Amino acid sequence: MSDRQPAYTIGIDYGTLSGRAVVVRVSDGAELGSAVHEYSHAVMDRALTAGDGQPLPPDWALQNPQDYVDVLRHAVPAAVAAAGVDPADVIGIGTDFTACTMVPTTADGTALCDLPRWRGRPHAYVKLWKHHAAQGQADRINALAHERSEPWIRRYGGFISSEWEFAKGLQLLEEDPEVYAAMDHWVEAADWIVWQLTGEYVRNACTAGYKGIYQDGEYPSEDFLAALNPDFAGFVRDKLEHRIGQLGHPAGTLTAEAAAWTGLPEGIAVAVGNVDAHVTAPAADAIAPGQMVAIMGTSTCHVMNGDELAEVPGMCGVVDGGIVEGLWGYEAGQSGVGDIFGWFVRTSVPAEYTDEAERRGISVHELLTERCADQQIGEHGLVALDWHSGNRSVLVDHELSGLVLGQTLATRPEETYRALLEATAFGTRTIIETFNASGVPVTELVVAGGLLKNRLLMQIYADVTRLPLSTITSEQGPALGSAIHAAVAAGAYPDVRAAAAAMGHRDVGAYTPDEGSAQRYDALYAEYTRLHDYFGRGKNEVMRRLRKIRREAVSAGAPDAADDVLLTDAVERETAR
Amino acid sequence: MSDRQPAYTIGIDYGTLSGRAVVVRVSDGAELGSAVHEYSHAVMDRALTAGDGQPLPPDWALQNPQDYVDVLRHAVPAAVAAAGVDPADVIGIGTDFTACTMVPTTADGTALCDLPRWRGRPHAYVKLWKHHAAQGQADRINALAHERSEPWIRRYGGFISSEWEFAKGLQLLEEDPEVYAAMDHWVEAADWIVWQLTGEYVRNACTAGYKGIYQDGEYPSEDFLAALNPDFAGFVRDKLEHRIGQLGHPAGTLTAEAAAWTGLPEGIAVAVGNVDAHVTAPAADAIAPGQMVAIMGTSTCHVMNGDELAEVPGMCGVVDGGIVEGLWGYEAGQSGVGDIFGWFVRTSVPAEYTDEAERRGISVHELLTERCADQQIGEHGLVALDWHSGNRSVLVDHELSGLVLGQTLATRPEETYRALLEATAFGTRTIIETFNASGVPVTELVVAGGLLKNRLLMQIYADVTRLPLSTITSEQGPALGSAIHAAVAAGAYPDVRAAAAAMGHRDVGAYTPDEGSAQRYDALYAEYTRLHDYFGRGKNEVMRRLRKIRREAVSAGAPDAADDVLLTDAVERETAR
Repeated sequence: MSDRQPAYTIGIDYGTLSGRAVVVRVSDGAELGSAVHEYSHAVMDRALTAGDGQPLPPDWALQNPQDYVDVLRHAVPAAVAAAGVDPADVIGIGTDFTACTMVPTTADGTALCDLPRWRGRPHAYVKLWKHHAAQGQADRINALAHERSEPWIRRYGGFISSEWEFAKGLQLLEEDPEVYAAMDHWVEAADWIVWQLTGEYVRNACTAGYKGIYQDGEYPSEDFLAALNPDFAGFVRDKLEHRIGQLGHPAGTLTAEAAAWTGLPEGIAVAVGNVDAHVTAPAADAIAPGQMVAIMGTSTCHVMNGDELAEVPGMCGVVDGGIVEGLWGYEAGQSGVGDIFGWFVRTSVPAEYTDEAERRGISVHELLTERCADQQIGEHGLVALDWHSGNRSVLVDHELSGLVLGQTLATRPEETYRALLEATAFGTRTIIETFNASGVPVTELVVAGGLLKNRLLMQIYADVTRLPLSTITSEQGPALGSAIHAAVAAGAYPDVRAAAAAMGHRDVGAYTPDEGSAQRYDALYAEYTRLHDYFGRGKNEVMRRLRKIRREAVSAGAPDAADDVLLTDAVERETAR
Repeated sequence: MSDRQPAYTIGIDYGTLSGRAVVVRVSDGAELGSAVHEYSHAVMDRALTAGDGQPLPPDWALQNPQDYVDVLRHAVPAAVAAAGVDPADVIGIGTDFTACTMVPTTADGTALCDLPRWRGRPHAYVKLWKHHAAQGQADRINALAHERSEPWIRRYGGFISSEWEFAKGLQLLEEDPEVYAAMDHWVEAADWIVWQLTGEYVRNACTAGYKGIYQDGEYPSEDFLAALNPDFAGFVRDKLEHRIGQLGHPAGTLTAEAAAWTGLPEGIAVAVGNVDAHVTAPAADAIAPGQMVAIMGTSTCHVMNGDELAEVPGMCGVVDGGIVEGLWGYEAGQSGVGDIFGWFVRTSVPAEYTDEAERRGISVHELLTERCADQQIGEHGLVALDWHSGNRSVLVDHELSGLVLGQTLATRPEETYRALLEATAFGTRTIIETFNASGVPVTELVVAGGLLKNRLLMQIYADVTRLPLSTITSEQGPALGSAIHAAVAAGAYPDVRAAAAAMGHRDVGAYTPDEGSAQRYDALYAEYTRLHDYFGRGKNEVMRRLRKIRREAVSAGAPDAADDVLLTDAVERETAR
């Protein structure tokens, strides 16, 4: 491309609290400038901070969609200015979003909450991914799907989340039928923002599949929906069904209005919407079958392509073209990873440690890591189960809880911390072995996300999984991934594979497994697996019973405490974020 | 006794670091004055602080017996002065000691370490109870006893401790045969101090039975000893065997020399030696069959009398007259209790808590207790196994380790703390149920020791065991118990039972079980028991395997670390102190 004009694309990553725009050079993926805009309404989880400020029940999490548009107005021009490029050289825009985050709209895409009539109605707002008040609906969907042996339920590891399109939609119908009736489209925010940019509504193949139960060209049947609730029978036909766009395809071109917001040329390509985790795979140039990308943060989301369709027990989903067009995209998840380490640091580390970390200007995580890094494998005598936030893959059981076994009076905090690090690695190995056993072999582990900074953790993952471990180079993986999709949508590359090869980067084999260490971890992993199966596969359902005892105890106690538990359980149901 | 002269006895409690003398009124057990004397040589566990100062191997713990005599010289006169009584009104002395603590002596009771010839030889000193360097010998004794089906092994729950007379004696023989040859008697410190007071060597029935394997008038056979080591064949005959004295009997009278040390009248009665835990039962007036006395400190020692001989699985021992003459004295133990709580406070509580406790002038234990006291039972959603220091009763397995199950990202430190409190209560219930099932029913739980101050803990124990829980009144239970034995030895009472009724005191039924709470704990106890049996009775020996992995890992690492582990394992082997 050296003989052509310099060309750039914009990737915009919509997170939970802010949106980030990055300007990327199309030829090589260089990130030239970026800017962040924080949502002024943030997450509304206690009261509407728009409308009349009414309080919200527990487990709710709403957003105001104008905040998303503000990112276009502020972060995009700021990023272009920071990059020092000529806006005229920008050839495309790509976006990725949290999911499943849902906007109820009119026929022209106006969010209902933007209409004066509905401004005071919570159900007219955006239901953020972590809105967990539709658990009852999700439970009914799952029960009915299993009862009717719906074929699609197996594509989701047997489990439709309360976070997804159908559960949230059913809640809307049942709690505010007027708003439901007024809604013409139930739109993924990932697609809504593209609609704002292009004036075109296109459902992206990724969320339609993973969150919208769109499989083999069909949604759940009207019959199924009617059995959930007669008034829900037309949900797909009336509210959901729409043109599907493949990832990397153009959804349309930038409208004059959106060009004015962003300062970019009218008419440039805008890519079909996408999801933060999935778009990270091309940013790491890791979209070939066998390359499992683990986005490791508070939780871990695993995405990987496969040539064939397989049903992997406990996966979050498998979707045709869900990551890259033409391949089956697999997703799995560990519902607690970094948040377990964070919980431990917050609740279980004495002042001696926190004081030393402060004195030395390092984090407590760094201090604990330093203190346990030189231990021999197995020296701590511990094994833990990483279920403090439940288990998504491969057990799909959010009633599970944490376990630490082997502590003695000589056990030090850094030893328990290390056991927790190892437990999450064992959790990843369990997922990988399940993929392998299901005919979807994993050959390389590619890590993105904040936790890749912990070198000890990365080496543990390489040793435990016996896989070469690569790390993404970009610190803005999702935004880069979106910019890659923008480049493809703009025609700069024939497909995402080619664009990823040129623009995506990873440090290949940054960590290699040490066979001696791997063998020593095998012994600990064998113990992990035995406990995993004993507590996770029904031999001793003590964790489930303790949850029940807890709920009963709390409901016998103060109402405040009961709320607290509901909230906690909701947090524990969060998957893969 | 109101028509007689006021009469007093002295109880002297020999602990690990100091000896305490208490002056007690014979008529009612009132404690009139006390004094403590700290051992100037303390515990020699790194180097001899006598002799030539030579370093000691790991796991050693020696004492200098002159420190015991110094308690007679200093603490006794100070206590009498503090009490303001006329020494002429003191009618007897009783003592209790740590056990098994062993002194090698010449024929006249001179400790070998007091002879210039042996001063530089570690094996010539007192081996304190927590000297754990005879584990190899103990392992051989146990293996051989089971191999030969020696009947006495069942009287000790199948397990002879490395702390006891035979293991320590065999170590002495095998590591320093010259000192062994020079030794005429292998004397419990409990008996050695009485020998100093009276000039008479009498082996007390308590330690002879619990620590000396003296059962039905016999010791292990010469044949058995020869099979351990041919040179050990004469151990009983040459070094151990001696007149047995029943508890509460006079061993002799105070010599002129000891009268000079103590300032007490020559010729007053001196009771047969005794052990701290066992002597506490009469101090609480709790020596009837069915009254289980739990001395709760860093660990818990349970002592109880029974009318009949029974073999209780996992007990520490059953000895005829081991607590009170004429009854079978049962002993059981939980190897970790207060030390688990202490470990948790030391290693697992964040600065926010320790700062608040400091600011408010309360202990972190008090703060955690306060914060969890109002929780509903089961609200924490946790169950723990109290095996951080292994398990003595009823599993007798020191390779076991701790477990905490049920933690989530919402779990707070006080909740885990409470789960540990509850786990120790479940451990006690397990012991009680084992006694009940063996035909030795427990009808009252009597608590002595430092932990009785925690009211929440006491209520948990009452609720969990469904037993009325009494607490000892005296803060110096062992010394009072010794004073009671002194009163019996002096003839003030016909027997220990009568003396305990008059002089011992407990707050009867200080805590009563609440049936509603008891039922809620039943649900948690059922989970505890299931985990207890799964991990403790061979279904999943993960804890044992983790220890092995740990030992191998450490021996592959630095020698310093290996020492550390040896030491740790030794600490974990400590039983019932």
